[in-house]
Formats: sequence, C-alpha cells, structure tokens
Amino acid sequence: MIDNISSSKVFSGWHKQYSHQSSVLNSAMRFAIYLPPQASESQKVPVLYWLSGLTCSDENFMQKAGAFKAAAELGIAIVAPDTSPRGEEVADDDAYDLGQGAGFYVNAIQAPWQQHYQMYDYISAELPELIEANFPVLSDKSIAGHSMGGHGALVIGLRNPEQYKSISAFSPICNPMNCPWGVKAFTAYLGSDKSLWQQYDASALITQHNVKQPIMIEQGLADQFLAEQLNIEQFADAAKKANYPVEINQHEGYDHSYYFIASFIEKHLAFHSKALLNQ
Amino acid sequence: MIDNISSSKVFSGWHKQYSHQSSVLNSAMRFAIYLPPQASESQKVPVLYWLSGLTCSDENFMQKAGAFKAAAELGIAIVAPDTSPRGEEVADDDAYDLGQGAGFYVNAIQAPWQQHYQMYDYISAELPELIEANFPVLSDKSIAGHSMGGHGALVIGLRNPEQYKSISAFSPICNPMNCPWGVKAFTAYLGSDKSLWQQYDASALITQHNVKQPIMIEQGLADQFLAEQLNIEQFADAAKKANYPVEINQHEGYDHSYYFIASFIEKHLAFHSKALLNQ
Repeated sequence: MIDNISSSKVFSGWHKQYSHQSSVLNSAMRFAIYLPPQASESQKVPVLYWLSGLTCSDENFMQKAGAFKAAAELGIAIVAPDTSPRGEEVADDDAYDLGQGAGFYVNAIQAPWQQHYQMYDYISAELPELIEANFPVLSDKSIAGHSMGGHGALVIGLRNPEQYKSISAFSPICNPMNCPWGVKAFTAYLGSDKSLWQQYDASALITQHNVKQPIMIEQGLADQFLAEQLNIEQFADAAKKANYPVEINQHEGYDHSYYFIASFIEKHLAFHSKALLNQ
Repeated sequence: MIDNISSSKVFSGWHKQYSHQSSVLNSAMRFAIYLPPQASESQKVPVLYWLSGLTCSDENFMQKAGAFKAAAELGIAIVAPDTSPRGEEVADDDAYDLGQGAGFYVNAIQAPWQQHYQMYDYISAELPELIEANFPVLSDKSIAGHSMGGHGALVIGLRNPEQYKSISAFSPICNPMNCPWGVKAFTAYLGSDKSLWQQYDASALITQHNVKQPIMIEQGLADQFLAEQLNIEQFADAAKKANYPVEINQHEGYDHSYYFIASFIEKHLAFHSKALLNQ
C-alpha cells in the first residue's frame, strides 16, 4: 500500500511523492520517484536510486539537482528515499548528524536506535521490492548519492553487486570509521566494536571486493568537509591496493552543495545509463 | 556597499548571495547573482532579472530552476532579488499573500506599507544600478518571473521598454485588478482608487503600449491557480486587441511549481539571449 502525496509533470515525465508504512523501519516513510516519459506498462525502465546526505529528505535531490532533463532523454527512473525513519515515536537526537535525517544507511543494533533505524535493509531490500511492485520499472538498478548518501551508495552498491549495475557518488564519506561524522554515528548505531563497522565502510569493503562494478566519484576541491570528513584519498588508496579501477574526478573551486551536484549530474546519469542499458 | 554572504561554483560560473542596505526600501535586502564563466572585467555580460512569486526569496529560482547550464552556455548573468522588504521593523501580515514575501512589485502609498514597500522602484532602478556598479555586467537587460513575479516582469518590462530588451513569464498573474490575490494586495498597498491600479496591471498596460518588446509566456494547463488567479486569457485578449504579438505557450499537465519552470527555462534563456545578444 502506497499513498500518493503529490504529482508534478516535469520534462514530459512525472515527479511523484508517496508515503507508505515500512515494515523494516517500523515507521511511516516518504519517497519520491521520477518516471521518465518512456515509462509505461509496455515499456519498463531501469531505476537509479539516489541516497541523500545529512538533514535531507526525499525532496533535496529532486528539487535541486536538475536531473530530469537527462533522465527523460535517457529513459531512466530515479527514486529518492528519505534519509532515516521519521516520526514522533522514532528516537532522535538534537544534533543534525545523529538520529532523524542521519540514518547513515546502516542497520542499528544499539538502543534506542535499533527499533527503527534499519536503513540498510530498507534501501537494499524493502524499497526496491515496493518500487518494482508499484511502478513500470525493471529490476535493473544502479545507486548513487551525496555525502552521507554517497557513503550509503558505495556501501550498499559494493555489498550487493548482483543488484546494482553501477555505483556513483558526489563528495562521499568514504571512510566513516575514520572521520568524526562516521565515528559518532557508528558508535551510536553499532556500538564500540569496530569489527562491526567494517561492513559499512567503503574503504574497507573495496579491499574485499571481487566483482568490478563501474564506480565513479565526483569531488569538489573547495568542499568545506573534504579534509576532515570525506577521506577521498583513503578510498582512492584502498581501491588502488585492491586493483579496483575507480574513476575519481576532482574539481577546482566546487563546494559541497547541490550547485556542485547540478554541474555534473548529467555525466553521472550517462554513466549509469551505459551500465543499465548496454548489457 | 554590498556584503557577500555565500559563493558556490556552478557550471564553471559562480552563484553568489549578497546583502545590502536599500535606500529605496529603507530595509536590509538580499539578492543572488549567477555570473557565467564568460563574465570578467574585460568581457561584460548582459543580465536577466528573475522575479519570484509569493513566499519566495532570492533562493527559490537559483536552487530549483536548473537555469545555470544554459546561462553558462549563453553567457548571461541572472539576478534574483527578494520578493519584498524584510525585517522586524517592516510591516507584515499573517497571510502568505500580503506583506513580507508578497511585495507585488508596486510602490505602496497606503499605511502601514508605504514606508518600505517600494518594490517597483527597487527592481527597476536601485537594484540594476547596484548590479552594474559592482559586477562585470552590461546595462543590457531583460526581465522574467513566475506567478506574482511574472506579473512583476510584465509590468516593469512594459513600463520601461528602453531598459528591458525582452520580457518573459511563467504562470503570471496577468490581470491582478481582477483576481483575488491582486485585489487584496492592490487594495492594501494602493488603496481603493482603481485608476491607480492600472499602472500595475499587465492587461491594462499592454493596451497602451507602443514599443513592441518580445514577450513570451509559458502556462501549464494543470496549474491549480489558472482559473481563479492568473487570467492568461484576459491578457491574450488585451494583447490581441492592441495588435501586440505575444507568444503564449500552453502545456497540458503541467502545474504551478518549479518543476514546470525547470522544464522550459532553457527555452526562455535562449529567447532572452536572442534579444540581448543580437542587437
């Protein structure tokens, strides 16, 4: 059961928001989907899942990324979930980087978070099942995201190579075990045993990875979080040691905002399109 | 004196926000500017002024319209002012369609509004002077807007044909004298003498207009405000009677949102570019 909240025509396709009751998260959830004009029961289209960053909802990417022109031309649907469970009954924290809006795409095992914060299972299993049951989409999918969502895309993509044809990220948190945002969130959600953290750390996962999905990363060099939080060099080193060919594009002058994402999103859609459509 | 608030690189150009003290409005004001990569002291670029709708600030268009790719390609700067004076000392109303966020681009003559609400003079005189004094732009300019801002663009453009090379609007309030939003705002800001309202009504102004600036209007046919507030047919009839060739493009299924604007903004930038660059 999904309930339609809004529908707007855009670039001859449709942007729609829905709410549904997530059994994995034990919470009401909202997501948005862009259906390109090609999508119909007789012509199903592949899907790109976009995971957003700290404080975001399903709306930030859809309103600010400027992605629909290319998605309409390429015939790709885009799904943007929320970044955590939501609601008064859901545990929260006053800080912007823990609790609601900051689910970090993990399955929490620590109180008070474990009752609702199961974002890894929600994104990798429950949501795609729901999307494929309710919309004219193929099971072919790719995954992308920004910042905390770039971390989520890399982790969920790398751990499920049979599901995701390609992975991309803007300004991702590449090595959360070794940055303040990640240490804070993982300590709260997973506890202090760092051996449990590795399954949610892209720089750890890539060293154990055998399947070579295409991976592309965009990073602005004027990003205010680059030095302290993102660890792109740690990920690049890990990929190199693992002999994994990751494309990392660095850009002078660009910051952490959606203005950076908008500037390069068409290149990422073309990258995913190649993986999704030419197989 | 203008103070920089933010700078973000986007499509090889720069989005910047500034605050300044407006003498016309007797209020601190914020505006945003997009400078395309071509803009430099040795190569000044023309400017498109974008006027936003009810409740908006300088941010809505810049974040949601997806205009920068085309502006960068065409070499056009874009300036987005706020929609009213702001601040605790500025008169306001609890309703979204009067007071702060709802200046309607008029010069108020009624209390308590007349002290600050002089948006017509701010947009048509003070702001362009400020922009031309502080940025590498030409005096060549065009004007566009959405909803209340579409009304503002039509009115300010038509009344200043020597200043604005072209005018365009998305979902404009075309005949504010005859719709609830306009009657409410004009009564408050201008008083009950309707002869004073005509100078701020595009459907009245176009009948008295001798200069034929290019005008283009985009209107969605699923726009929730079309029947009651926008009066596009009244404007089309007035233009026809005045023998004024206005291009009005109507689109099945599109609503009043920025998703509609994003779908057609590149066409509008090309339209203004033609007027601004081919003279």
